[in-house]
Amino acid sequence: MNTFGTNFKVSIFGESHGKWIGITIDGCKAGIGLTPDDFLKDIGRRKPGAIGTTPRIEDDLPIFVSGIYNDITTGAPITIAFENNNTQPTDYSKIVQTPRPGHADFVLHNKHNGFNDPRGGGHSSGRLTLALVAAGVIAKKSLPKGIHINAILTEAGGSKDIDAAIQKAVEDQDSIGGIISCTVNGLPIGVGEPFFNSIESLISHAIFSIPAVKGIEFGSGFVAASMKGSAHNDAIINETGETNTNNAGGINGGISNGNELFFRVAVKPTSSTPQIQNTWNRASNSIEPFTVKGRHDICIALRVPVVVEAVTAIVLADLMHNS
Amino acid sequence: MNTFGTNFKVSIFGESHGKWIGITIDGCKAGIGLTPDDFLKDIGRRKPGAIGTTPRIEDDLPIFVSGIYNDITTGAPITIAFENNNTQPTDYSKIVQTPRPGHADFVLHNKHNGFNDPRGGGHSSGRLTLALVAAGVIAKKSLPKGIHINAILTEAGGSKDIDAAIQKAVEDQDSIGGIISCTVNGLPIGVGEPFFNSIESLISHAIFSIPAVKGIEFGSGFVAASMKGSAHNDAIINETGETNTNNAGGINGGISNGNELFFRVAVKPTSSTPQIQNTWNRASNSIEPFTVKGRHDICIALRVPVVVEAVTAIVLADLMHNS
Amino acid sequence: MNTFGTNFKVSIFGESHGKWIGITIDGCKAGIGLTPDDFLKDIGRRKPGAIGTTPRIEDDLPIFVSGIYNDITTGAPITIAFENNNTQPTDYSKIVQTPRPGHADFVLHNKHNGFNDPRGGGHSSGRLTLALVAAGVIAKKSLPKGIHINAILTEAGGSKDIDAAIQKAVEDQDSIGGIISCTVNGLPIGVGEPFFNSIESLISHAIFSIPAVKGIEFGSGFVAASMKGSAHNDAIINETGETNTNNAGGINGGISNGNELFFRVAVKPTSSTPQIQNTWNRASNSIEPFTVKGRHDICIALRVPVVVEAVTAIVLADLMHNS
Amino acid sequence: MNTFGTNFKVSIFGESHGKWIGITIDGCKAGIGLTPDDFLKDIGRRKPGAIGTTPRIEDDLPIFVSGIYNDITTGAPITIAFENNNTQPTDYSKIVQTPRPGHADFVLHNKHNGFNDPRGGGHSSGRLTLALVAAGVIAKKSLPKGIHINAILTEAGGSKDIDAAIQKAVEDQDSIGGIISCTVNGLPIGVGEPFFNSIESLISHAIFSIPAVKGIEFGSGFVAASMKGSAHNDAIINETGETNTNNAGGINGGISNGNELFFRVAVKPTSSTPQIQNTWNRASNSIEPFTVKGRHDICIALRVPVVVEAVTAIVLADLMHNS
Repeated sequence: MNTFGTNFKVSIFGESHGKWIGITIDGCKAGIGLTPDDFLKDIGRRKPGAIGTTPRIEDDLPIFVSGIYNDITTGAPITIAFENNNTQPTDYSKIVQTPRPGHADFVLHNKHNGFNDPRGGGHSSGRLTLALVAAGVIAKKSLPKGIHINAILTEAGGSKDIDAAIQKAVEDQDSIGGIISCTVNGLPIGVGEPFFNSIESLISHAIFSIPAVKGIEFGSGFVAASMKGSAHNDAIINETGETNTNNAGGINGGISNGNELFFRVAVKPTSSTPQIQNTWNRASNSIEPFTVKGRHDICIALRVPVVVEAVTAIVLADLMHNS
Repeated sequence: MNTFGTNFKVSIFGESHGKWIGITIDGCKAGIGLTPDDFLKDIGRRKPGAIGTTPRIEDDLPIFVSGIYNDITTGAPITIAFENNNTQPTDYSKIVQTPRPGHADFVLHNKHNGFNDPRGGGHSSGRLTLALVAAGVIAKKSLPKGIHINAILTEAGGSKDIDAAIQKAVEDQDSIGGIISCTVNGLPIGVGEPFFNSIESLISHAIFSIPAVKGIEFGSGFVAASMKGSAHNDAIINETGETNTNNAGGINGGISNGNELFFRVAVKPTSSTPQIQNTWNRASNSIEPFTVKGRHDICIALRVPVVVEAVTAIVLADLMHNS
Repeated sequence: MNTFGTNFKVSIFGESHGKWIGITIDGCKAGIGLTPDDFLKDIGRRKPGAIGTTPRIEDDLPIFVSGIYNDITTGAPITIAFENNNTQPTDYSKIVQTPRPGHADFVLHNKHNGFNDPRGGGHSSGRLTLALVAAGVIAKKSLPKGIHINAILTEAGGSKDIDAAIQKAVEDQDSIGGIISCTVNGLPIGVGEPFFNSIESLISHAIFSIPAVKGIEFGSGFVAASMKGSAHNDAIINETGETNTNNAGGINGGISNGNELFFRVAVKPTSSTPQIQNTWNRASNSIEPFTVKGRHDICIALRVPVVVEAVTAIVLADLMHNS
Repeated sequence: MNTFGTNFKVSIFGESHGKWIGITIDGCKAGIGLTPDDFLKDIGRRKPGAIGTTPRIEDDLPIFVSGIYNDITTGAPITIAFENNNTQPTDYSKIVQTPRPGHADFVLHNKHNGFNDPRGGGHSSGRLTLALVAAGVIAKKSLPKGIHINAILTEAGGSKDIDAAIQKAVEDQDSIGGIISCTVNGLPIGVGEPFFNSIESLISHAIFSIPAVKGIEFGSGFVAASMKGSAHNDAIINETGETNTNNAGGINGGISNGNELFFRVAVKPTSSTPQIQNTWNRASNSIEPFTVKGRHDICIALRVPVVVEAVTAIVLADLMHNS
């Protein structure tokens, strides 16, 4: 289901080429100042325009539908909508016929007996991450003061020199992936539950809602599997729970330990690569060469850090809603 | 909260040194045959006894409390309990004073104002994975025929020769971690939702409930971040959605695509290493040398594969409960 | 929280004098035909215009925001919005100062520290029942064939001659309440759960979301309290579970029994009576005479039957979503 | 599903003649003192023994399974179990053959394809209200200080002289119903939500989990339907929100208004009347005379007030869990 959270409940709707996309937040407390300007920075970070990103440009101005009165949250459900203006439905006419490799076209058609909206991936489009970013802006503002979430792209195409990697991908005319690091500072001790609602459980749940994510690791992550316990354990050094090392990534037993929360996210290369690929043709039931149409990102990972921050903020707002 | 799922809802209770631990499953359909013998194999896989595992041995015989009548599920909530017999409460008397590095002792004390049950980690103990395994047995039986879940330990202490790695860890007197691979075969196309309830979201949510897990990746996982789109995309080759490669790990857009579901899980080295470590002493507010007491596993990853299978089965039972 | 349901999840948003009101349905299956015309009849039944109803007239045309493509549901979340055009914000300028008796003005102000939207009751307005009716239209269409829900006003102002009662209320210039009877035919045996999710639990939960409802009773209802068991029990007469009497209202042990589902709902007189009343003035902290402003119904119960049907359909769609 | 609540989540399990019945509470905060003695009073109020109640007597001593350490809640899930000792399985051998009128025997058999536990109603037995009472004891202790819930039987068999009514029912050898009034004092303003989670929605949801309940009304209830608005409205008289009348039953717009919360519950006569009745025989597919076996209450309503209090406390604990 397209809803997340218990007390700060986020519900997403819309399609890539539909009327509006948007988000409803149920449970945001009253009294938080909120203007359209508050959204500009994070929406701007997600926007294409840079080298390596799609030429589809939208205004992406948030429409305050409900829950905000005189620029302050009212305690009622908040709905924020965005118009889809720059749509090109004709780009997508062949999706049903020849499902794009790496995309959800084939599975959506099968799951919904062909009734899914195929245009640009429909509801499964990366366009909907705009709504996540909007929810993230509100989530960030609803967190207790002093909590800071920061995600950055640290690798692209296997390289830490990201500009060079993008430049090379453009030259190669082939899409690339990347790795995003996210930290949360200022989180108090005690957020999360041992079973099922560990902080890793909830963050990973939310992160894997972002299209193109293939993996997540907290603290030492996969490296931990080849470490020894004596090296991996973070010794507590004082009554605040501070540790010198942070292999735990700020979490013990599913619960925040007061140190920096830290995790890394793997993003696959954009499925819509400019390269010629093969795919199956539904009508002819044969394999044929295929070049993706539409306007796409050569490195979608460039636009994902702000989405990682957004869903992390949503998780924390839900866990800490009464703090 | 210590509950997972929507339609096949699992609720876990108990502590390492309490009376019983157990699990309640709400939503399991009536008519599934279920005897205590059905639990023996998976419980046996989780049991210690082998080299590298804890000497704490329990009978681990499932007590059918409710929901089963004449060895068949009734449609009412199923509660399965296990006795804790082989407890040694005196082993844990110093946990509050000197919280064990890598464990949740410090955060639980802080989160619950000192009211948590400190004995053996209380509710946060790995002992509770026994209850997850029991729920997994029922979940597996409630899945449609033909779905097979299989998890194995593929690396320990950084080596693929696992016996040697365990032997070396015993000699080194230091705990080690490992990597578990899990596959699901026979899953139909269409399981999972694009946002928030992607199949990766739900599996990772459940997997990070298992103590000691530090990371998860699906299909190509972290390697995807350094691949090119033309190499990463799995071309569909026929009308069943079959692909020659499986970088997607059997999932597109959060939805199963009919190929093998595949993911890997990183397990950290047991926090309770036999090595001397430092930790903070609450009474003296100083750092002091510390050796963990109690009976522990030198490579907990040996016992985790069946738990990975169990929570995967729980997720799938929840997603497919009416199939 | 402003969300209802598990598998057919309904989320409501909007305010009486805000931009739009609307509803998102998450979990409606793909393939249901749905055009704006499908909404006209039920929306028309809720519309004012008749004697005894408010002169505020809105177009109430449903805007299909998402989840519907080529007039068919796609399986993605469905959002339906309605514009608020005929708003009169100046009507409500005194609500904060002198909270209207019987309304939520005082409690909302207190609950949300004065940040609630006071115009026309904000999110708590009866205007939002329009969104419930829209969700009900979709819920009705998503039910298995052969299930018919029918609610009618059977009493107004204590009289079964409803026209006369309305006429008298208009003459008296005082609002009146009413009683609504609702039946569901064609419901199979077995819908509902014994504890917490009894069919009465879920229907009453949804019914008490409708403003002005004060009571609900199933089958014999309050009369049962003065009956004898031998007279109250409905004897089963054949293998279909048919009974000659229906004191159970079609439900045993929280589960539908195959007979007609039957319940009655008490609706209080509209709080916004034309009569002069007293209320407390926040500024002067004294009691003063008060006449409600705005445009109101003298018998809101006239417009409630279709809302009763709608929320009943939502409950049944949720309970039967995979039937 | 047999689970209720969001933050103070209650999950019930067990059958009338199974091993144990019990309850798990997930989300109860740490630090609440709790001893077996705390349960005696409320369990005693539910116990039979008085004239008009069943001769089945159980010890009903709570077994603390988890979540309580040194007589204090730990923050982990609390499980309380009760043994079923005084069972008489042979009493119920004919239930499948001749389903008891007014009971769930027929619908459960049909819903679960005959796999339900038929003994004494199985999971649907009134015996499980013992578990609700236990959860209610904990819920009451977890509420903020100063909140008092009080439910009493005000009518039985249509009479306010309850002793006489019971005496007459025993003489008539026919079961009778009753009406229970419940008040909550000390509730602050602001508890509840306008849509879907109105305080009436949640209380009625929980109340209709109690077997034999046929109706609920808040404040003026069904009488409201024949009142005029000018008489029904409760005028606020001061800044605390106090009103002289309480037709609202302490609730406006689904939200507590600081006055006494008040509601009434209708309980039907026990289905297991000593009178001869007719029912359908599954084997002969004919109607035949039937006398209920087993040990039953002639006026179950005598034992229900404490259950009404319990589920009300559960609702309030859930709504106010962080207050």
